[in-house]
Order: sequence, then structure tokens, then C-alpha cells
Amino acid sequence: MLCARVWRGLSPLCRGGHLTAWTRTQSHTAAAARLDLSGIYPPIATPFTAKEDVDYRRLEENLQKYNKIPFKGLVVQGSNGEYPYLTEEERVEVVRTVRRSLPADKVLMAGSGCESTGATVQLTEKMAAVGADAVLVVTPCFYKGKMDSRALIQHFTKVADCSPVPVVLYSVPANTGLELPLDAVVQLSQHPNIVGLKDSGGDITRIGLTVHKTKTQDFQVLAGSAGFLMAAYCVGAVGGVCALANVLGRELCELERLCVSGCWEEARVLQQRLIEPNAAVTRKLGVPALKQAMEWFGFHGGACRSPLQPLTEAETQQLRRDFSSNGWL
Amino acid sequence: MLCARVWRGLSPLCRGGHLTAWTRTQSHTAAAARLDLSGIYPPIATPFTAKEDVDYRRLEENLQKYNKIPFKGLVVQGSNGEYPYLTEEERVEVVRTVRRSLPADKVLMAGSGCESTGATVQLTEKMAAVGADAVLVVTPCFYKGKMDSRALIQHFTKVADCSPVPVVLYSVPANTGLELPLDAVVQLSQHPNIVGLKDSGGDITRIGLTVHKTKTQDFQVLAGSAGFLMAAYCVGAVGGVCALANVLGRELCELERLCVSGCWEEARVLQQRLIEPNAAVTRKLGVPALKQAMEWFGFHGGACRSPLQPLTEAETQQLRRDFSSNGWL
Amino acid sequence: MLCARVWRGLSPLCRGGHLTAWTRTQSHTAAAARLDLSGIYPPIATPFTAKEDVDYRRLEENLQKYNKIPFKGLVVQGSNGEYPYLTEEERVEVVRTVRRSLPADKVLMAGSGCESTGATVQLTEKMAAVGADAVLVVTPCFYKGKMDSRALIQHFTKVADCSPVPVVLYSVPANTGLELPLDAVVQLSQHPNIVGLKDSGGDITRIGLTVHKTKTQDFQVLAGSAGFLMAAYCVGAVGGVCALANVLGRELCELERLCVSGCWEEARVLQQRLIEPNAAVTRKLGVPALKQAMEWFGFHGGACRSPLQPLTEAETQQLRRDFSSNGWL
Amino acid sequence: MLCARVWRGLSPLCRGGHLTAWTRTQSHTAAAARLDLSGIYPPIATPFTAKEDVDYRRLEENLQKYNKIPFKGLVVQGSNGEYPYLTEEERVEVVRTVRRSLPADKVLMAGSGCESTGATVQLTEKMAAVGADAVLVVTPCFYKGKMDSRALIQHFTKVADCSPVPVVLYSVPANTGLELPLDAVVQLSQHPNIVGLKDSGGDITRIGLTVHKTKTQDFQVLAGSAGFLMAAYCVGAVGGVCALANVLGRELCELERLCVSGCWEEARVLQQRLIEPNAAVTRKLGVPALKQAMEWFGFHGGACRSPLQPLTEAETQQLRRDFSSNGWL
Repeated sequence: MLCARVWRGLSPLCRGGHLTAWTRTQSHTAAAARLDLSGIYPPIATPFTAKEDVDYRRLEENLQKYNKIPFKGLVVQGSNGEYPYLTEEERVEVVRTVRRSLPADKVLMAGSGCESTGATVQLTEKMAAVGADAVLVVTPCFYKGKMDSRALIQHFTKVADCSPVPVVLYSVPANTGLELPLDAVVQLSQHPNIVGLKDSGGDITRIGLTVHKTKTQDFQVLAGSAGFLMAAYCVGAVGGVCALANVLGRELCELERLCVSGCWEEARVLQQRLIEPNAAVTRKLGVPALKQAMEWFGFHGGACRSPLQPLTEAETQQLRRDFSSNGWL
Repeated sequence: MLCARVWRGLSPLCRGGHLTAWTRTQSHTAAAARLDLSGIYPPIATPFTAKEDVDYRRLEENLQKYNKIPFKGLVVQGSNGEYPYLTEEERVEVVRTVRRSLPADKVLMAGSGCESTGATVQLTEKMAAVGADAVLVVTPCFYKGKMDSRALIQHFTKVADCSPVPVVLYSVPANTGLELPLDAVVQLSQHPNIVGLKDSGGDITRIGLTVHKTKTQDFQVLAGSAGFLMAAYCVGAVGGVCALANVLGRELCELERLCVSGCWEEARVLQQRLIEPNAAVTRKLGVPALKQAMEWFGFHGGACRSPLQPLTEAETQQLRRDFSSNGWL
Repeated sequence: MLCARVWRGLSPLCRGGHLTAWTRTQSHTAAAARLDLSGIYPPIATPFTAKEDVDYRRLEENLQKYNKIPFKGLVVQGSNGEYPYLTEEERVEVVRTVRRSLPADKVLMAGSGCESTGATVQLTEKMAAVGADAVLVVTPCFYKGKMDSRALIQHFTKVADCSPVPVVLYSVPANTGLELPLDAVVQLSQHPNIVGLKDSGGDITRIGLTVHKTKTQDFQVLAGSAGFLMAAYCVGAVGGVCALANVLGRELCELERLCVSGCWEEARVLQQRLIEPNAAVTRKLGVPALKQAMEWFGFHGGACRSPLQPLTEAETQQLRRDFSSNGWL
Repeated sequence: MLCARVWRGLSPLCRGGHLTAWTRTQSHTAAAARLDLSGIYPPIATPFTAKEDVDYRRLEENLQKYNKIPFKGLVVQGSNGEYPYLTEEERVEVVRTVRRSLPADKVLMAGSGCESTGATVQLTEKMAAVGADAVLVVTPCFYKGKMDSRALIQHFTKVADCSPVPVVLYSVPANTGLELPLDAVVQLSQHPNIVGLKDSGGDITRIGLTVHKTKTQDFQVLAGSAGFLMAAYCVGAVGGVCALANVLGRELCELERLCVSGCWEEARVLQQRLIEPNAAVTRKLGVPALKQAMEWFGFHGGACRSPLQPLTEAETQQLRRDFSSNGWL
């Protein structure tokens, strides 16, 4: 596999920190050049058995269904995959499993972010080795008071220097309590192995400015939620990683098509019907709701790992209302 | 003047709180029906003399220039007008002055929000009496912990019941620390005398959902800042009240034209060049920066009232950079 | 009346901004030196009639009762007095009324803060003229992004320069969304006419540091809420302005006595029983709850001005529980 | 070793979830009864070599020095130990190392919190097996929108059910963006194997209320920072886990002595001199500053793991000032 080979070649240099500018530019530019991120990705959920083990069989059944939807690819081990609740081995094994089922022309973007730079580099290597086409690297966040641009630039630069596959930055303030500062994004966009940003914050002014200030870099911005997907396209994003795509994947691909082809009026009508269902499975009711909705739409969702709790009866009713009042149930 | 006459008729009923549904519907529907809010409005700044008195002469000179720009109208006594620093008499007098200079076909929207419901009703009456076509009513905010939907619905309903002119809701969390809850907006959109919302929060998902959930009400949403104007049009807003229109009014009207006529690619290019100048005169450097930039572009800005301070030298340079790096200076 | 005379002497100088250091030091040091703030103050509520007019008769009946409690004085037109809902005339008239009923040896601290520096200076003058012994000046807050130390130091310095009576700074972030920065407090503490701070933020580390860094200035810190009164005494505060003193005034004076006399064990027992009732009438349920509780304890509370709403039935029950579960009802 | 034996006995029951109330009460009450938490604990820093490996030799040298200070014990793998940057093996190995050096009469409290309940249970078991006397369990926080009282009560109950040693709850909102709700604390305080709370939020009103509402449970509250240590004692806390104790350990033990013996005046003088140094090594400049200050005071601090950055020159000067201006350097 190319990715792994590239990594093996880079690895000693990287670890010693003596990677020359030449080596870095050559290998990374090649790797990065081929990767077009544009399109829709579901950040797939991780099904568990009743005993909270990863249910690989059900995962594959979901994948078979997703393969029939015109997604650009899948995000594996994003926030909706409950990655903080998986061991490192599980995180890698899930990616390996997905790679086996995923057609070669679909992009597999694997979440490899950890709190420390070193752990992130190691997991990035493993993700590439099992077939990830790109890694999605979340901002470290525990010491949030210290995660300023200086620290984050250093972190992502080191990861990108060492990664055998292209890196996508990931800013998700609702979970991390931290927004990747715009000046850091702009500087990091110049790295040959950093190809884009998943922005889940949803500040459309900031997204527009990110596109504007990185326009000379072939840097790709992905909307991190379906609620502002159309607006993100409008200001220059090229796609979306949307929890709701686990449930209403075809509809989100249709929204993409309408935006890309300039059918803004029809896009608006569809976009508006997606806002409440999206909010329900993300900000309002979270991963347990996403998994419940998946069940209603023919996918395996199932329970979450503890401490995430099943929905209460009232929450389930609210969830149903948010889909049905928009004509989806 | 019609507005004042309408008010005089309503006033006794209103004060007694015995306004019948019939009366209300009749008079307000008529009033509201005529008011199309679509378009661009500068929320005009208030020039002061060196002694911090309102400088009506300079204000009129600005108005002469604004009259040549294809604005839909003007917002007078919005946040950028330093209304919290003006006495009630000054607030009214400024509106009266603007009315005299403003062509009859331009909409004069006057800020009449106060902390108490009673004071807001009274100032609304006065604004209508001196010629406001509509009032812009900000959320009361001092007791923010108590300003839930129940209180805010009651407040705006009472104001709208009593107002002789249509009411536009105004949510500006950066100043008030409070966002008008969406369920309150939806309920208030059903009032015959409430015709729209100026949303300065900039959460594009929320703006899209507001449009969606009020679509049966002929309710008009205005973007409250130039930073997300194009995205707001994209999701269904009909115009914008933009501080930056005090400085780059023609350019914002051009952005409006591009959005309305579906020239999204050109719109995007223009929008992106406006984000940093807009941030500079609002969130980042505030009203003193807005007034400084007005001077550079041929308008009278001048100083602010205390405790707003003049820009420091470093801030002035930052402001200049935010305009010049985007090709405006 | 001395205060008014002092003001008349100062006024022309002040207005011109040419007050010499000598004059300022002389007159203000004299004024400030006499004012010992130590003790407990209720920030009194403003009773209204059914028509929402100020009910001066009921106010005086409350005052008669408060006069029998060993308060150091009263705060009039603080946040609990609904000052943002009163006209300037009402604000002054309420202070005048209180002065008439208040024994000369009790301190009358009048809230005179407005958004603009000029309006604050004028209202401060009026408050002094009707008998305030000191003014409590809240941070302006509408343009919160611009209310940095520079602006706030300028604002309070100007007010203190012009005020015929000592000034107490007032930081209440729950209402204003703004905390008076510590470096501003430290610098302002050096002004001869600024004698203290009411801190309603409740960050005890900050309160301790404020005492520490102003210890050479004879600067007095007052706790702004009963919830942290004992802890504030512990780290060096000299008293408290506590909404709950409108209801449980004797108990708070007893808590003061226990703290001042070093009876910390007894103080702790009493303090702990006051936390929930205090939270109920402030942060949790606000002024309407304060007024409801006043009724239960023999004072006139009555309704609030709109848009403040009466408690719901559920809220009233919660309020009752917060008092009864701590043995007060 | 007793802890491990107890665990082996409990483990099958626990894993099956069929632990009877009787068994639980018996074993846990015995375990919990012996543990008096009162006193001062440094949450020790983890020294690294130049290559970012754990430097066990330097760690032991620090421990020899700490053993001469009258601490109640040590917290190992708290936030200041950079635990999110250590592997699980390293976390356990550091605790094992500390246990070997720590006198038997000192309490070893080991951080064992992970995001998932299952991982936390497993790490808790391991920490007990290598000699922890208690575990400090931080709130899971990634899915903060879902970490309500229901989820947190379930999480901590499960961990406490399974833990062979007593559990101390840990709320540190500055890092987690989440405060353990008071109602959850109150309910969890009834669990026989949950003996206390480390509160790093510093809301003194909340700390007082926590003491009040758990007073029938022999539940012990520890201040999580030196900035409010005296105030916390004042309202009923029994000790403190203070980053600053890594640097000024004797001084914090002296502050404890003054508080416990009722020397409040002397305590206040000492407390006030500790606020700025404490803020510098926590909120303001973080773990890198803590480690730098340790070097100045004769301990091994050294560098942090990436992405934590070394202090800039300006930060180092600020740090020095915060110690020297209070007479410590």
C-alpha cells in the first residue's frame, strides 16, 4: 500500500526532526495534490453490541448501504464515532474494517487526533498504514488556556510533517471548548501536507474569511454540520462532513448537487427542512439521537458507550417531531 | 402626517390595554402591509461637536451623501448611533432631523427600544410622531436572567399593540448579552404589526431556521452585519442593516444586487473583501473605528461620546490595514 | 445641605475639566475621609402600584421597618431597585424620599450610573443634591467590547472628579456582561473620591486580590451578594450590599456581627442557611422573587415593572422551598 | 496488597453489575471509613527528559523533597501532571513509582479519569493495584452537551461501585468546560465509596452550599486551587489540592495550619501573598509556568510535552514578577 510505504520512508527523518524542506515538499506535495475533498461525508457512527463491544458486523452492513449513496467518502473516528470512548486499537481496527468495505474511489478520512503531539503522530501513522486516504486531526483541548496559535501551529505542523497522508484540520468548539484561530489556519494552509479544514463551529463569517485568506493555497474548507451546509457552499466551502448524512445521506448529496449546480432556490427549500433534524442529532440531543434516528431510517445505530445515556422517552418524542414536522417521518 | 394620526387614534385604547383584536388587526394589517423592508440600510452614526453635542449640520451633510446611494432607507438610533448615550429628547430630535432630509420613498426605521415596556411604548409613539416609518426595538437586557421567551413575547406584543407603525425586532447579543429566542420570534411573527427581525447575532443556521419557521407569515429577516450578508441572502433574508454601509454604502448595495440577481460568484468575491473591513468597524474596534473610517471615505464621523474612547494609534493602523489589504484604501 | 454646596462649588471647574489637583484633593479627601462603608446594606426594592407607578407610601412603610434593623445604611437605585425601568426623575425622587425617612447616621448610597459619562455626572450631582452620602456607579456596558480598562478608568475618574460625594464602584457581571478589570480597580482606588467597590461577581480569589492590591489606599470592598458574604469578610471585605437583606435583614446583620467578632463556626452555620434563599431571590428567580419573599416576611414587595414578569406558580413553590428547607419559613 | 485483593474480590460482581447493596456497603464503608482527606496535596508535575520521556529519576528526587513537607499526601496524575499526554501505561507507572517513595502514612490519590466509563473503571483498578489510596476521577467532558446529572451520576456510581479504593470526584471547568452539577454531587455523596470532591471551579458560594447539602454524609470538600484556599476553609472545606504546593509547599501547609487553628488574620496576610503566584502557575500561564517556578525553588520541573510550549521570555518575566512582587523571589 502506497501510504504505508511513504510513511516508512519518512518516518526516521520525521522522528529525528531533521526532515529537509526538500523531502517534505516533494513527498507531501505529491500526496496532497491528488486529494480532492469536495463532496459529502458522513462521519460514521460506531455500532456497539449490547455489551458495548464494537459490532463490526453491523458496521459493515451500514457500510454496504452507504456505498450506494453518492458520498465523496467517509469520515471514520470523528466526533460522532465516539472516538474518545474507543481504545487506540479499536480506533485503528474500525478504520481497517471500513477500508476493506469501501470502494477504492471513495475517500477514507480517519480521525487521528490525540491530546499530545506524539500520540497524534503515532496514531496518524497507524491510520495511514491501514488505508486512510487522509487524517482528520482535532485540536488538542484539555489545556485550552494554553492552546493558542503558537502551540497549535507547532502541533499541526509536526503532525503534517510526519503524516504519510494529507492532513485535514478539525475545529469543533462545541466539544473542545476551543476554536482553531483563523491566523493559525491561514499559516497552516501553507503547509504542503495540510489540505483543508473541517469547521464545525458554524460561524459563517469566519468560514467566508477562511476561504478568502487561503485562496492562494488550494486549501479546502468543509462544513462540519448540515445546518449551515448551503451557506458554507455559498461562501466558498467545497463540501460537508455532516452527522445527518448517517441518516439522510441521499438528501445531503442532493443538497450538494443543487448548491454546486447553482440551483439556489431549490437548495434553500431543501436546506431549511434539514436544519431541525440536524440540530436534533447534534447539538440538541447528540450521538444517542443520531443513533436512534439511524434505526428509523434503516441503519444500525444502537446504543452508545457509557457515560452517554440512551434518550429519555421525552427526548425520543422530540427527536421524532424534529424529523416529522419537516416531512421526513 | 399619517403615522401620528394613526397613533392618536390607537393610543387611548392601547394605554387602557383594551384594544380589541378587531381594531388591532385592521389598523396594523394596513400599516404593516405597505412596508417592504427589502434592501440595504446604514444604521447611521451620530456626529458630535468637540463638546460632545449632537452636530446636526454634519449629520445633514452625511444625509445628503447617503441620499445618492440606492439604500432602501436608514436606521436611525441603532447601536451604531450611540443611542444609549443620547437623551430621549436627542433620540427623537435626531429622527426628526433625518426625516426632514430623507426622500419620502426611503424607509426611516427608528430605534425606540428602552429597558422598560412602558418607556419603549412612549418612545415608539414619539418616533412615529416625528416620521419614522417603522421602529426597531432591541431586546431589553439588563435583567438578562429573566428575559426569557415569556417576558420578551409580552414586551414586544405590548409594544406592537401600541405602535402606530410596524415593529422590527432587534437581536444584538454582542451588546445585550442576550439572543431573542427563536420560539419567541416565531410567535411574535404572527403579530400583525411585527414585520421583521434584524438579526445581528450572525448564526446562519438560526437565520435559515427563522426564515423557514416564519415562512407563512410574510415575516422579513434582515442581516444585522455585512460580514454574513451574502450568506443571509442565500438562506432567505431580504436585506441588511450594516454598520459598514456608513462607509462603503454603494458596495453593499452592489452586493445586494448581485445576490438578488443570482450572481453568486461575483457576489462571493465582493463579500469576501468586505469581511475584514466590517469586522474592524464593528466587533473588533467598534463605533470609534466606524467613525474614523467614515472620515476616510468622505463622511463626517468625528468623536464618540464618553466613555467610548478614540482609537489608539495602533488601532488606527489596524483599521487602515483591514481596509487597505482588501483593496479599499 | 453640605453635599449640594460642595457640588455647586466644584461644578464649574469640573464641567470645564480644569479642576486642579489641589482643589480635587482637598475637597474630596475631606468628603471621602468621613465615609466608613463597613456594614450591611439592603439594595432596596422599589414598590409599585397596580398601575406600575412608584408607590411612595409603601416605600416609606418599608423604610420604617428597615430603620429598626442595624443596617449601616441603604442602597437606593441598585439593580434590585429596578433602576433601569425608572425615569431619571423617578430615580431622584425615590432617593429624596428615602433621605427624608432615613436617620442621619445611616448611609444613603444612591445608584447614579448611566451609560454615558455625561449623564452619569449629571445624575450623580442630582443624587448628591437630594441627600445621598455616596453614589454607587455601575460600569457602563452596552458597548461592552470597548469597555476596557482605559475607557472605564476615564469614565470613573471623570465621575469621581465631579462628584460632590464619595464614589463606590459597582461591578455586576450577571447584569452587565462585564467585569470591572482588576487593574482598573487598583488604579481607581488611588482617586481621593473613590472609596470602595461593590463586587457582585463573587469570584472570591479576585475579591481577596482586590483587597490585597488596594491595601495602601484605605479602599473598602463590599460583597455584592449574601451568598459569599462570610467568605468575603474572611478575605478582607468590610461589608455587604445584599438583596436578601430586604427580606432577612436582621439575619444578615447577625452574620456580619459573627464575622467581625471572629465567631467563624457560628457564622458558617448561619451563612450556609442563607445561600439557597439568596440564590432564589437573585440569580435563580430575580427581582420578582425578591419582592414575593418580601411579602412573606412583612414588607411591601408587590409587582415589578414590565417586562419583568410575575413568578409562575412553579417558581413560587421553588422560592418557598428554598426558604423553608433552610428553616426560614 | 490489600487494595488489589479487595479489587479481585469485587471485580466479578462489579463487572456483572450484580453487586448487592450489602456487599457494596460492607466493603466500601470499610474502605471509605479509614480515609481522612484533610490537608494539603500537591498535584505533582511529571518531569520529562529532553526527549519527552518520563524522567523517573528526577521525579524521585522531587519526591524526596516533598516527603519533608507536612503534606497530607500527593495527587498523582492530576491536571498538572499532564496526564492527558501520558499513555495509560505511563500513568500507572508514575503512580507505582510514587508509591515506592511515599511514606505509608501519606495519602496517594491517583487520577484515573478517562472519557468512557469502562476505561475509567479499568484504570481505577490498575491505580489501586499499584498502591493508590484513593482515586481522583475527573468528569468526562468531550460530549459536554450530554454530560448532564443523569449521565454523570451513572458514570461516577459505576466507577465507585467497582473501585477497590475510595473515589474523589473532580470538577475542573477551566479544562473540561463542564462543572459537575451540585445536585449530582449531593446524590453521589451518598455513595459509600465516594468520599469527597476536589472543586477547582472556585465558586465559593457553590463550595459553601456543597458542604451544607452534604453535611450528613461525612463528605469532604477539597479546594482545587491555592487562590481560594482560605475562603474554602472558611466555608467548610477540609483541605486543598493546589498546583502551587509543588513550589511553595511549606507555605501552603502553614496556611492550612493558620486556617485550622483559627488564626484568620495571619492566614489572610499569607493567603493574599499567594494569589498572584498561584494564578501565574495555573490560569494565567499554566503548567509550563508551574514547571519553571519549580526550577527556581529547587525542584525539577523541566519542559512539558508537546503541544504545551515553553514560556516566552515575556511570560517568564511576568511569572517572576508575580512571585517577586509578593516577596517570594
